[in-house]
Amino acid sequence: MRRLDSSSADFQLQLTALLAFETSQDPDVDHRVAAILADVKARGDAAVIEYTNRFDGMSAQDFAELELTQAELKAAFERLPAAQAEALQAAAERVRRYHERQKMASWSYEDEDGTLLGQQVTALDRVGIYVPGGKAAYPSSVLMNAIPAHVAGVKEIIMVVPTPKGEKNDLVLAAAFVAGVSRAFTIGGAQAVGALAFGTQTVPQVDKITGPGNAYVASAKRAVFGIVGIDMVAGPSEILVLADGTTNPDWVAMDLFSQAEHDEIAQSILLCPDAAYVDAVAASIAKLLPNQPRKDIIAASLANRGALIVVKDLAEACEICNYIAPEHMELSVENPEALLPQIRHAGAIFMGKFTSESLGDYCAGPNHVLPTARSARFSSPLGVYDFQKRSSLIKVSEAGAQKLGKIASVLAHGEGLTAHANAAEFRLK
Amino acid sequence: MRRLDSSSADFQLQLTALLAFETSQDPDVDHRVAAILADVKARGDAAVIEYTNRFDGMSAQDFAELELTQAELKAAFERLPAAQAEALQAAAERVRRYHERQKMASWSYEDEDGTLLGQQVTALDRVGIYVPGGKAAYPSSVLMNAIPAHVAGVKEIIMVVPTPKGEKNDLVLAAAFVAGVSRAFTIGGAQAVGALAFGTQTVPQVDKITGPGNAYVASAKRAVFGIVGIDMVAGPSEILVLADGTTNPDWVAMDLFSQAEHDEIAQSILLCPDAAYVDAVAASIAKLLPNQPRKDIIAASLANRGALIVVKDLAEACEICNYIAPEHMELSVENPEALLPQIRHAGAIFMGKFTSESLGDYCAGPNHVLPTARSARFSSPLGVYDFQKRSSLIKVSEAGAQKLGKIASVLAHGEGLTAHANAAEFRLK
Repeated sequence: MRRLDSSSADFQLQLTALLAFETSQDPDVDHRVAAILADVKARGDAAVIEYTNRFDGMSAQDFAELELTQAELKAAFERLPAAQAEALQAAAERVRRYHERQKMASWSYEDEDGTLLGQQVTALDRVGIYVPGGKAAYPSSVLMNAIPAHVAGVKEIIMVVPTPKGEKNDLVLAAAFVAGVSRAFTIGGAQAVGALAFGTQTVPQVDKITGPGNAYVASAKRAVFGIVGIDMVAGPSEILVLADGTTNPDWVAMDLFSQAEHDEIAQSILLCPDAAYVDAVAASIAKLLPNQPRKDIIAASLANRGALIVVKDLAEACEICNYIAPEHMELSVENPEALLPQIRHAGAIFMGKFTSESLGDYCAGPNHVLPTARSARFSSPLGVYDFQKRSSLIKVSEAGAQKLGKIASVLAHGEGLTAHANAAEFRLK
Repeated sequence: MRRLDSSSADFQLQLTALLAFETSQDPDVDHRVAAILADVKARGDAAVIEYTNRFDGMSAQDFAELELTQAELKAAFERLPAAQAEALQAAAERVRRYHERQKMASWSYEDEDGTLLGQQVTALDRVGIYVPGGKAAYPSSVLMNAIPAHVAGVKEIIMVVPTPKGEKNDLVLAAAFVAGVSRAFTIGGAQAVGALAFGTQTVPQVDKITGPGNAYVASAKRAVFGIVGIDMVAGPSEILVLADGTTNPDWVAMDLFSQAEHDEIAQSILLCPDAAYVDAVAASIAKLLPNQPRKDIIAASLANRGALIVVKDLAEACEICNYIAPEHMELSVENPEALLPQIRHAGAIFMGKFTSESLGDYCAGPNHVLPTARSARFSSPLGVYDFQKRSSLIKVSEAGAQKLGKIASVLAHGEGLTAHANAAEFRLK
């Protein structure tokens, strides 16, 4: 695992190289995705059945075979071992409680002329959530996508989840039951994104698509953006631990692992002013790695994209953090509140030694769908606000029309837009 | 102008055809934009100077010639006729007052175990606003983009505005002064978007780019999305007037014109249950059109994409409106409050006969950058919230770590993520 020192002359160059990640769109993938989307748009159900049979090794004859009934979702939940069922429900309950605080409300006020100004907040009518299937099946992602939509007041939540060779994941189905998914289809890839974006004979057209997926899914989401809303185009997962040296180094090592185990291209970074503590974490890594079932992925990820960085002090660590704008950020320090105001850019901030990232991933309450690849500079965690939208409200009084009409008339004439000016002038007495 | 009746058997087909608009990306434009962006990324200032000289008929030798100083912006404001200066300031003041209500604040709470959960709201550091230049120079757009950023607390607002053949628009420069733009450059097109997204030797890299532009600008914004945030990819402007027949038909005709005068592909639609009133509006259109300076654009827009639609009743009109999800929606009825709860999807809602869209465009207070092409189903007006973002806050107490750790451990093992589980288990006593 590479070690850097912020006092090196070329540190900024090294840091830039460390963060560089080509999220470049593959023109070949885009091309194939465009063809699939056009076909799904033109032929609907028939096209989706064909692609699903071809790519997921299925043999469906009729679209009904690709729909999961509410009874199936419920049965999956009831089959779960008690500990899993309880953990799922406890997590869902905490996630729901947190997200309820995010709900936006309409507001309005009257100005001195009796003109009403405001904002009406409404929920989206119908959303689609994409849940990856196969090996990387994450029931927690079902909760994190569906619950905010539910809290927002979305009436219909349509889940799609591919089931390669027909293999269904009970935990995913159970999570859909717990989260209150309206309908669920065992389809995936660009064909599922197309079905949700355009609608087919069976799959209803949605207003927004959220949730992670592979390169085909990401390309398809980019392509349908505008026809429907999308959440974000996610990159590899990242953690940045900012440590003052007071947390057990084994704990920090395991927190770095829990990001690295996702993927060979996931990124785990430690920032600390204490070189001896960095040595201790490196020793913990060496000690703990051999016992990890996913040790090959972790080792590759740490070697490829990980870094242990010695910094001058905690203030400098905060500035480096703001440059990186990490998806997950642990303030693993004695007094996290003192540093918090200095952290401007991060998807989620985990404060204090007891707050492992994994607690937040599953059940603390906040969402685990977070901005990656430095996009926390300008975007937010997935939330209830992603499933609500605003309409401006303006009701100009007769008195207001006199005052505003004169201003609008001057500005409209200044822009050469006479009809705009006339529309305002018509309302003058 | 076409007339439709919602009771026709093929009304839904006609409506779909009316709304159809190919926002298709032109692969040729995308290709040329990609080359410009790559060149700007590689060569910075030198590339931007070259493209600006070539496309905008300029002859700059040095980048300093492409920067507008604060003194120039101030001088432009001071040169304005008093009526324009006052109108600009009055509009800015109202827009600022409305947007201040949109500002989000951080929040947090403690649960029963002493675990802190919350959301930290911060402003973006630096944003770029794109202002179209040349013929269609809209100073009001400078206010509508810069003021929300300012209210959000963005420290640096970088404006770009092309000045073909060196021609500067005093009202645009004055608006930049009034709105408090930090730096301004006379560059445009894909090269300006590239300069803002990647940064050059002179132009600082921004975190988000907002504002409208031509096909090259739209393509460039799509391409850099992810490296920086973008607001939206705007389509042609639209108005939908829902009338009960109590508003002066001349007023409604002029409101339809004020959308149509923007562009031959702008869309103006009237919905009304009263066929005689629709006739009256048609007569007003015929009477008023010949005197409009932009009558050719208006006539083309109304013929191409306009419609007068007779509906069964106001409830049906609301449902049609929700399908269309118009950018601008006038509730030109006696009692707009009664219908408001039925309007779920619209960018801005103008209530009552005195509220011409043009009052909202310039100075009522709400933003005039609004979702087009049915995207009000899932998106919102430009606002302060576009220049703020959230970080989740989690500080788990020692007691909380015991409870949450057990839940996380069960779920992480269920997903096969052992390091996640171990990180939680390490915090158990």
